[in-house]
Amino acid sequence: MLRERFSRPLDPRAVRFSASTDEDAALVGYDLWGSMAHVRMLGTTGIIPRANARRLETELRRLARRAAKGGLRLDPALEDVHLNVEVELTRRLGAEGARLHTGRSRNDQVATDLALYTRDALLAVEGAALDLVQTLLERARSPDGRLVVAGWTHFQAAQRVYWAQWLATHAVRFQRDVERLAELWQSLDSSPLGSGAIAGSSLPLDREATAHWLAFPKVNPSSLDATGDRDFATDTLYLLARLSTHASGLAEELVVGAMPEVGRVRLDDAFVTTSSLMPHKRNPDLAELVRAEAAPALGRLVAHLTLLKGLPVGYQRDLQAGKPLLIDGVRRGLGVVAVLTPMIATARFLPEKSRSTQPTASVELADALVIAGVPFRRAHARVARFLDRLEREGGALPELLRADLEKAFPELEGTSFTIPRPEDEPERRRTRGGSSWREVERLLVEVEQRSQSAGRERARECRRIDRRRRELGLPAGLFAV
Amino acid sequence: MLRERFSRPLDPRAVRFSASTDEDAALVGYDLWGSMAHVRMLGTTGIIPRANARRLETELRRLARRAAKGGLRLDPALEDVHLNVEVELTRRLGAEGARLHTGRSRNDQVATDLALYTRDALLAVEGAALDLVQTLLERARSPDGRLVVAGWTHFQAAQRVYWAQWLATHAVRFQRDVERLAELWQSLDSSPLGSGAIAGSSLPLDREATAHWLAFPKVNPSSLDATGDRDFATDTLYLLARLSTHASGLAEELVVGAMPEVGRVRLDDAFVTTSSLMPHKRNPDLAELVRAEAAPALGRLVAHLTLLKGLPVGYQRDLQAGKPLLIDGVRRGLGVVAVLTPMIATARFLPEKSRSTQPTASVELADALVIAGVPFRRAHARVARFLDRLEREGGALPELLRADLEKAFPELEGTSFTIPRPEDEPERRRTRGGSSWREVERLLVEVEQRSQSAGRERARECRRIDRRRRELGLPAGLFAV
Amino acid sequence: MLRERFSRPLDPRAVRFSASTDEDAALVGYDLWGSMAHVRMLGTTGIIPRANARRLETELRRLARRAAKGGLRLDPALEDVHLNVEVELTRRLGAEGARLHTGRSRNDQVATDLALYTRDALLAVEGAALDLVQTLLERARSPDGRLVVAGWTHFQAAQRVYWAQWLATHAVRFQRDVERLAELWQSLDSSPLGSGAIAGSSLPLDREATAHWLAFPKVNPSSLDATGDRDFATDTLYLLARLSTHASGLAEELVVGAMPEVGRVRLDDAFVTTSSLMPHKRNPDLAELVRAEAAPALGRLVAHLTLLKGLPVGYQRDLQAGKPLLIDGVRRGLGVVAVLTPMIATARFLPEKSRSTQPTASVELADALVIAGVPFRRAHARVARFLDRLEREGGALPELLRADLEKAFPELEGTSFTIPRPEDEPERRRTRGGSSWREVERLLVEVEQRSQSAGRERARECRRIDRRRRELGLPAGLFAV
Amino acid sequence: MLRERFSRPLDPRAVRFSASTDEDAALVGYDLWGSMAHVRMLGTTGIIPRANARRLETELRRLARRAAKGGLRLDPALEDVHLNVEVELTRRLGAEGARLHTGRSRNDQVATDLALYTRDALLAVEGAALDLVQTLLERARSPDGRLVVAGWTHFQAAQRVYWAQWLATHAVRFQRDVERLAELWQSLDSSPLGSGAIAGSSLPLDREATAHWLAFPKVNPSSLDATGDRDFATDTLYLLARLSTHASGLAEELVVGAMPEVGRVRLDDAFVTTSSLMPHKRNPDLAELVRAEAAPALGRLVAHLTLLKGLPVGYQRDLQAGKPLLIDGVRRGLGVVAVLTPMIATARFLPEKSRSTQPTASVELADALVIAGVPFRRAHARVARFLDRLEREGGALPELLRADLEKAFPELEGTSFTIPRPEDEPERRRTRGGSSWREVERLLVEVEQRSQSAGRERARECRRIDRRRRELGLPAGLFAV
Repeated sequence: MLRERFSRPLDPRAVRFSASTDEDAALVGYDLWGSMAHVRMLGTTGIIPRANARRLETELRRLARRAAKGGLRLDPALEDVHLNVEVELTRRLGAEGARLHTGRSRNDQVATDLALYTRDALLAVEGAALDLVQTLLERARSPDGRLVVAGWTHFQAAQRVYWAQWLATHAVRFQRDVERLAELWQSLDSSPLGSGAIAGSSLPLDREATAHWLAFPKVNPSSLDATGDRDFATDTLYLLARLSTHASGLAEELVVGAMPEVGRVRLDDAFVTTSSLMPHKRNPDLAELVRAEAAPALGRLVAHLTLLKGLPVGYQRDLQAGKPLLIDGVRRGLGVVAVLTPMIATARFLPEKSRSTQPTASVELADALVIAGVPFRRAHARVARFLDRLEREGGALPELLRADLEKAFPELEGTSFTIPRPEDEPERRRTRGGSSWREVERLLVEVEQRSQSAGRERARECRRIDRRRRELGLPAGLFAV
Repeated sequence: MLRERFSRPLDPRAVRFSASTDEDAALVGYDLWGSMAHVRMLGTTGIIPRANARRLETELRRLARRAAKGGLRLDPALEDVHLNVEVELTRRLGAEGARLHTGRSRNDQVATDLALYTRDALLAVEGAALDLVQTLLERARSPDGRLVVAGWTHFQAAQRVYWAQWLATHAVRFQRDVERLAELWQSLDSSPLGSGAIAGSSLPLDREATAHWLAFPKVNPSSLDATGDRDFATDTLYLLARLSTHASGLAEELVVGAMPEVGRVRLDDAFVTTSSLMPHKRNPDLAELVRAEAAPALGRLVAHLTLLKGLPVGYQRDLQAGKPLLIDGVRRGLGVVAVLTPMIATARFLPEKSRSTQPTASVELADALVIAGVPFRRAHARVARFLDRLEREGGALPELLRADLEKAFPELEGTSFTIPRPEDEPERRRTRGGSSWREVERLLVEVEQRSQSAGRERARECRRIDRRRRELGLPAGLFAV
Repeated sequence: MLRERFSRPLDPRAVRFSASTDEDAALVGYDLWGSMAHVRMLGTTGIIPRANARRLETELRRLARRAAKGGLRLDPALEDVHLNVEVELTRRLGAEGARLHTGRSRNDQVATDLALYTRDALLAVEGAALDLVQTLLERARSPDGRLVVAGWTHFQAAQRVYWAQWLATHAVRFQRDVERLAELWQSLDSSPLGSGAIAGSSLPLDREATAHWLAFPKVNPSSLDATGDRDFATDTLYLLARLSTHASGLAEELVVGAMPEVGRVRLDDAFVTTSSLMPHKRNPDLAELVRAEAAPALGRLVAHLTLLKGLPVGYQRDLQAGKPLLIDGVRRGLGVVAVLTPMIATARFLPEKSRSTQPTASVELADALVIAGVPFRRAHARVARFLDRLEREGGALPELLRADLEKAFPELEGTSFTIPRPEDEPERRRTRGGSSWREVERLLVEVEQRSQSAGRERARECRRIDRRRRELGLPAGLFAV
Repeated sequence: MLRERFSRPLDPRAVRFSASTDEDAALVGYDLWGSMAHVRMLGTTGIIPRANARRLETELRRLARRAAKGGLRLDPALEDVHLNVEVELTRRLGAEGARLHTGRSRNDQVATDLALYTRDALLAVEGAALDLVQTLLERARSPDGRLVVAGWTHFQAAQRVYWAQWLATHAVRFQRDVERLAELWQSLDSSPLGSGAIAGSSLPLDREATAHWLAFPKVNPSSLDATGDRDFATDTLYLLARLSTHASGLAEELVVGAMPEVGRVRLDDAFVTTSSLMPHKRNPDLAELVRAEAAPALGRLVAHLTLLKGLPVGYQRDLQAGKPLLIDGVRRGLGVVAVLTPMIATARFLPEKSRSTQPTASVELADALVIAGVPFRRAHARVARFLDRLEREGGALPELLRADLEKAFPELEGTSFTIPRPEDEPERRRTRGGSSWREVERLLVEVEQRSQSAGRERARECRRIDRRRRELGLPAGLFAV
């Protein structure tokens, strides 16, 4: 098919190398949706006979139902999803099927499929990420959240904080991803359908009509841009890489926190494995796999940007290599979040072991000297030397006697300063955004509000899209990303 | 300095390897700004004596004026910009200088410097990109824009379009970058200053006050997030990579378009070079360098994401490796746009050579058959075979006689269809977003409005920021990104 | 299975996310081979009863035959190929199957599988690349090779060369890949099997014996290294990326060379496609897909290196994410070469169109002035100005009259210098490695010898490996990479 | 200069964007060396007058001495090192200077500079890596090496090993890098000089002579390849990325090992820092910076491969963007190794804390059951359940009474099996490559021999290169990479 000009069929090695039917399996629903909007418009405008359009629509709907049940297998010899569908229709409808592609190019068709797919995929990833944010916030408000732990910098005890602040901070990072995902699906608002190869059509296509049926608020105003633009795919892969990188940081903290020597996190049995050789092992494999996944997510982004480098506007076949990147990326990104959410929901965040009597209150001591009039840099130096001696003598800051403290720092005499007990430390820092519970509460409320607002907006968008699909009689099951 | 606890100075190889004074040169202004806001607040709140704060401020302002004139060299032995400034102040003010770092950590300080720098950098890149958009639009409205050229797909003539559509399409892509850059600087709205190491401070810091002086609308509500978050840097590198990739595609079209065999673009003498060996050469070196620059832009993004992979929240020293990525990225990104804009402004976009009589009207012919009732797929096959024969016989579609056409396609008899002359082809496709001038005009107006609106918003933001700096007496020249 | 210590089965989302059965399909043969070597050794050493070992071997062989026919499907609920095989054996042999894993860990097992797979994969890629080298050399020796074409720099005519030199230069680049691939499979000489989890075994395993049966010349001398080392996979992905990048450069030259405006390459009908909309199109899609493939090849390399960043020695589950990268990379790399080879074999490399009378002999003219005593830089400047005037006057260097030449360059009077005709130009440059046919011939002979020598060595290695597999009764069909 | 054909100078923005003088500073010595070999040959062959050649050589030598003292600053307005040198010579020698570039193009010149630079750089990196290997081996043979530590998988105690095995395993990984670096500099054996723009020269250049003076064993047999090939740079960046990734894994183990909770590594005071705010901190900043550096190393590799994607053979200006990648990469790679080596040399590797009584001997227990006839998989399950109960009851495997063991595992009655004490565990596993000291010793000897052999070969190559430079009178100090 489509080789009337050529003396030879496509080389079989070329057929194998160029077929995209594997990745196109994810696009079937979107391709059928696009075709249905297109033929309805072809009928309405009279470009093809109205009855012909109706039969095409019926047949497309039948195909959609079959596909929703997994009953449609794409034949690689027919290159891609587009040709598979067209051949299927022509087989059943003859000349009427041969009208399907009127006024359309595979260039605007694949752009449409990918935009529709990406919009759904972004909503799906956003939904999963919102669940993760909510889970982190719930754990912050659980009893574990009120426990105190030595916050790390450089993997060394820095200052003590509530687990709730740590959990909410991870929530904030994912909430940022949520908001960027939402911005991105909102920008996916223009229908490429009707852009032809690169320049539109001499047939009187009604692009507003197809845009309406595809739930696109607008029509892309440049056919040359619409057919070649894949910014939305790059942006998606970037946000997936960013999200996966956030997840990898959290996973690393779980892996290290779950070391028996550290013992500040206990992962649930449902998320650990043992060794095939060593019966004593309790391995955080799932956290490691989450940590790892940032790597292929980055690889896909690199591949997509490298692909686009030096490509002219308009359609080039190179773009095809972007499809599996996008589809694998969405699938694996969803997997990361799907496994991280219950892992967090079931993990236990533990109180500090008594042995970790690390002198994280050193700053409060220096601050007390500052209040007593000592320039900070000098206070810092004196506390440093004091702690060094204390360590060599085997003492511990939290257990220090008041008298010893005043001997070392006479300025503190008569002040109300005390070395805080570890569990009281977070309350000492009452600056905005600091570690005290009042500030943690403020943080929690802010993130909760932002995530709820995002959730509501997302729900509205999902309903808007579903409505169009229902109106066209397309089964919802066709669109499981 | 700062090594009171240790028995030994830092190893000299470690000093060399860890110093960041090279890249910090770009941050001097931002570091001074941050310090000035900080000491003013320390004085206002009474954390340090008010007179001390005033002297620190005066000294910082003096240093700022010196730095604006290039008179401040950072000493690598003093690690970074922060310590250089602190040592400088202590040298002049003694114990008063030793109060500068009160209630502050290098962790929140560097986060502040980078956020301030990035906000300015984004505005600078956006400004340059807006110039490029405007230049592309001006060329689209110039006489060159009304010329017709065969739009390519697969580097093969596809459909004829106005140069204006091609120029406006490149403008649209850069305009998308502009809008994402604007979204990003808008999201850079929270002051990290006052977050301490990771947990805030036990001193009564007024974070709203420092945020005000730094022109941040808000205070970051999690100290743990504020000190470790570098999402804004990753986002910046991503947008620079995206912008550079757009530029590389445009550059490739210039390089290929300027081939004598192709001859559709003529670059100005000011943007070509010759060979050191071959006196006949007229090489598009600058376009090649622009094309190339997408590669290091991507490399920096990769480096930054890889850096962050598996990092806990809070500060880790790994983050330092991100600074030169950001600063080089901004500098090179600005360079790409700075050279591309005048290259476009001075290039000539040429009318099609007469020999390119490629049959891009084949679609219009098939469409005419569709209107005459032939199913599209059959029309396509017939036209394909017809063109194959025509080519073998040495004929050219645009020169075909009406009679010959009707002989091949009897359906066209009696219709008004004609093969369009090449220069008339764009007008045939009058669908929304298509190649006709009406649609190109619509496109131009849309992009013009979007870019003007972005320009106005950007100007407001620049003024808002400048005002704060003026109020603090900081010279504008300090902030040339 | 393997969860005796845990209170709960693995979470179903975790099962889905962590299963590697998709990618492990490519490893089945290698896993069975490793297991067969292992049980034979367990029997010989008496670690398990000899009869037990024999039955395990028989059963593994049966499984191997089934797998070779595609009759073995891996169940994702059983995680990976290793557990699938073990469960299969236990199902048939009961307690005897439960001895399979004696003295073995999945850590050394997967390392063994991957090393065996990679060795075969490298030989396969090398074989394909050798075919490509040979095809390029054959085309260089075909009549097309004797045709002259303007060699490009900056996509501008630089100096004329034989197509043969261009073809041989591409051959040289791929030959370098061949040689690096060979170095890599030669370095894959150490058996990981018997390294246990990370530290070996307290059972008297005979690692030399298993190494022998797996055709490994040596045993890896550090168990800690053997289980965690994936350098060979990174190296493979690097070489695939390098090879794909070489292919992408060649593909770009085909795409641009096949532009009608350029017309120096004609791709065979079996490797071009048309448009679904535009019947006149003759698109070099396959060349574009080859060009594109360098991007995902790079993405996989990035993913693998990012994965390994910051990983300790020994086994971490993160390593699993490397398996699909390796396996997809090999498959796509083979695809690139498989399609490029016949594309080159069937393409036509055309003589220069008469209109390309570009003055590439400018250097020869300057050189003649040098021989006549003019310092080169002055000669260059004079020729440049001369050509500029010639161009403005519409003249062409190759058509210049002797008298006009001598008028411009009196130094040439009395010398034998002539402007070479385009087709004679390559013979003028007779330096080593230059464009004259004598040098091209020298180049061809060198590359032919290198590729033949590589081919012989590769064949020896293939035979050596096959012998072991035959001795163990393993069907060859099991090892189609 | 070089713009005789053009009506306008290069645009000032283009000059800034395209100058490569910053990175070329590292190439000055190599450029002068190449020019000296070239002019000597020009004189010997009589292409330029012998006296002229001598004066050029003298002047180049003078420039070399000046450059070695840092007295040569490259002017960006003169684009690159090549033009800077040529202008300098012409300023002093007039017409004689104008002969320098005879028979040479910047294309073969820059290829020569980069090949010479890269050869030296590889030798430098190899030398540094050999020091690191030797340091690791020395620490393995130090008293620390005989201490026993729980080897990790998944950051969980797996099996106990000697620190020596861990150290030697890291040595093996770097030794592999050493060997690949050596292979690479050996393959850098062909002189590009004399390849002209892409096609050689019509002047009778003696390429063997220049190759000799540049210490290249051979002449590159394809001028088209020689001018455009940058495989050696990509390979270098790949090996630097691999080496940095190895370093990052080691650094991660140092960072985690130095956590007070873990306490198995103590970094020397000369390689730790404190916090500017928290006087108690003892941060492994240098280890973190080493860990981080794998990220920009990867970024540079990505940039270089992306750069080359889709580039034709021959010279394109895009290649220029590869120069800073290579030069920065070498400098930072050397920095990583330079700081890691003394960090390892001064770190203390500590014996296990008594509390880490993790049951890593579980495998030995299961193996004992295997010897007693229990199928392994069943032994594994029984030990797993046993350990689970033991843990719940608060018992520890190493402290278990014989009687209790036999009660749980009656099969062990009458056998000589005992649970090994932690410090005896490594000796239990006596398989090849296992954890016993005999095997560690074998490993140490192998790595020592490989690294010594590499060291000798490297020294020979350095001497060979130095000899040529001395013969030409070039100061050694010119070639500090």
